[in-house]
Amino acid sequence: MRLIRFGEPGREEPGVLLPDGRRVDASGEFNDYDEGFFALGGLESLAEWVKDGCPGGVEVPPEVRLGPPINRPSKIVCVGKNYLDHAKEFGEGIPTEPILFMKATTCWAGPNDDVVRPHGSEKLDYEVELAVVIGNTASYVDEIAALDCIAGYSVFCDYSERAFQKEMGGQWMKGKSADTFGPMGPCLVTPDEVADPHGLRLWCKVNTEIRQNGWTGDMMFRVPFLISYISRFMTLLPGDVIATGTPSGVAMGMEIPRYLVPGDAVECGIEGLGELKQRVVALA
Amino acid sequence: MRLIRFGEPGREEPGVLLPDGRRVDASGEFNDYDEGFFALGGLESLAEWVKDGCPGGVEVPPEVRLGPPINRPSKIVCVGKNYLDHAKEFGEGIPTEPILFMKATTCWAGPNDDVVRPHGSEKLDYEVELAVVIGNTASYVDEIAALDCIAGYSVFCDYSERAFQKEMGGQWMKGKSADTFGPMGPCLVTPDEVADPHGLRLWCKVNTEIRQNGWTGDMMFRVPFLISYISRFMTLLPGDVIATGTPSGVAMGMEIPRYLVPGDAVECGIEGLGELKQRVVALA
Repeated sequence: MRLIRFGEPGREEPGVLLPDGRRVDASGEFNDYDEGFFALGGLESLAEWVKDGCPGGVEVPPEVRLGPPINRPSKIVCVGKNYLDHAKEFGEGIPTEPILFMKATTCWAGPNDDVVRPHGSEKLDYEVELAVVIGNTASYVDEIAALDCIAGYSVFCDYSERAFQKEMGGQWMKGKSADTFGPMGPCLVTPDEVADPHGLRLWCKVNTEIRQNGWTGDMMFRVPFLISYISRFMTLLPGDVIATGTPSGVAMGMEIPRYLVPGDAVECGIEGLGELKQRVVALA
Repeated sequence: MRLIRFGEPGREEPGVLLPDGRRVDASGEFNDYDEGFFALGGLESLAEWVKDGCPGGVEVPPEVRLGPPINRPSKIVCVGKNYLDHAKEFGEGIPTEPILFMKATTCWAGPNDDVVRPHGSEKLDYEVELAVVIGNTASYVDEIAALDCIAGYSVFCDYSERAFQKEMGGQWMKGKSADTFGPMGPCLVTPDEVADPHGLRLWCKVNTEIRQNGWTGDMMFRVPFLISYISRFMTLLPGDVIATGTPSGVAMGMEIPRYLVPGDAVECGIEGLGELKQRVVALA
């Protein structure tokens, strides 16, 4: 099943993307895809509604904007340097256990929204990542139980301002939290449609040039371990997002970094999950 | 004006603490003290209701638990090493601009709730802090405009597990985010009752022994600057919390650190704002 949200920013309605490509409005039956939805068995109810042929659900016109496929989460937990080649290009050593940081959830954005370069930004970078959305509260879960805590997967771009992140006294979140720095989508794909989250190609193109071309199997710390590990430090709530790290190829890793500038077109994709297609703009 | 929330965890109702010490239920008039409340002029409406004598508001019995005085915020932004003496005891240099990190908002807790020591924790530490609650959305605000973005002040304890924070590969949030690590209260005090947020004593006692005894005037980066500075990196929403840093005296700074253990009684207070009174317990 593929969940979408559509409509104006902050006023999105829930819907589904059907296998035949139709986008159907589910707002007659469901309020939103948020903490309460996942906590109260919303995914099961939605699956039944879809199985019944989406009764009462009208088609969403193709021109309607897609929002992020779930409502703003309580937290976005990111894993730093989780692909070996990226850890090498980033520098400062190879992690022996996951590096964790957070993005302010105000960075939350839709899959095709503009990416807004903040004031003073000269080192805007991209990081395509597999996002895991939590379905059940997770606290001190083991790796087996962690599998039951996954609501689905999506494509995420962890936009990063490298000077803010690394040259302004810390911590990393300073360069990770600007508005629009956390687009997710186009849909949330439930686990039954993802045979192996570690068997997926993921890529990022800038102006059609392939910059990142990785494989989720190259994660040093894998999804069940990450959920289990993070749940030792904090309680993960339904609807929370884990961004599982990015492969090599970011601008920062280049000999002469080619950071994003207004006008650039960025496409981030993951095999079977879809693509983000965004344009970089200057802050008005 | 002093805002409180009372009732069972997760089901708190809004109320006010009156100058005569009475606690009055405001839930007949107001849903909750959350993002929408502050965004939609809730403080002004509440002030009118109080001025009218709290019509319809019954008294809250003294035995009823206090929750945190605002609902779980979208983010808790913390300022690291913002008092010179604490920066020295912490080590790793004196900041030349604010260090920022976040706590997972699932750490949110009431002023007298137990502090739960996580599994594997041996270095549980306290940090009394002045908390600033945001009242209006703040993005690229200057220091003057920042003053209009303050809904009020409260007492916050930034509980920290030092091994998780500093010895497990980073970033700090790993040691800052356990459940119960973010108690706030007992009330939110509006700015009209705080003549100068930089003229307040703040302290932390463990088992009645004074461990921290500081003065908010010793902050290296002050409240208007902090709001302005943070708003360059992320948008602050109504109801968001800024924890402005802690003075010296934490366990980590001692020659032989005396970390918190189950059974310890912790009191954190700020002049004119009130006190948190908590007990440390082991995780069941």
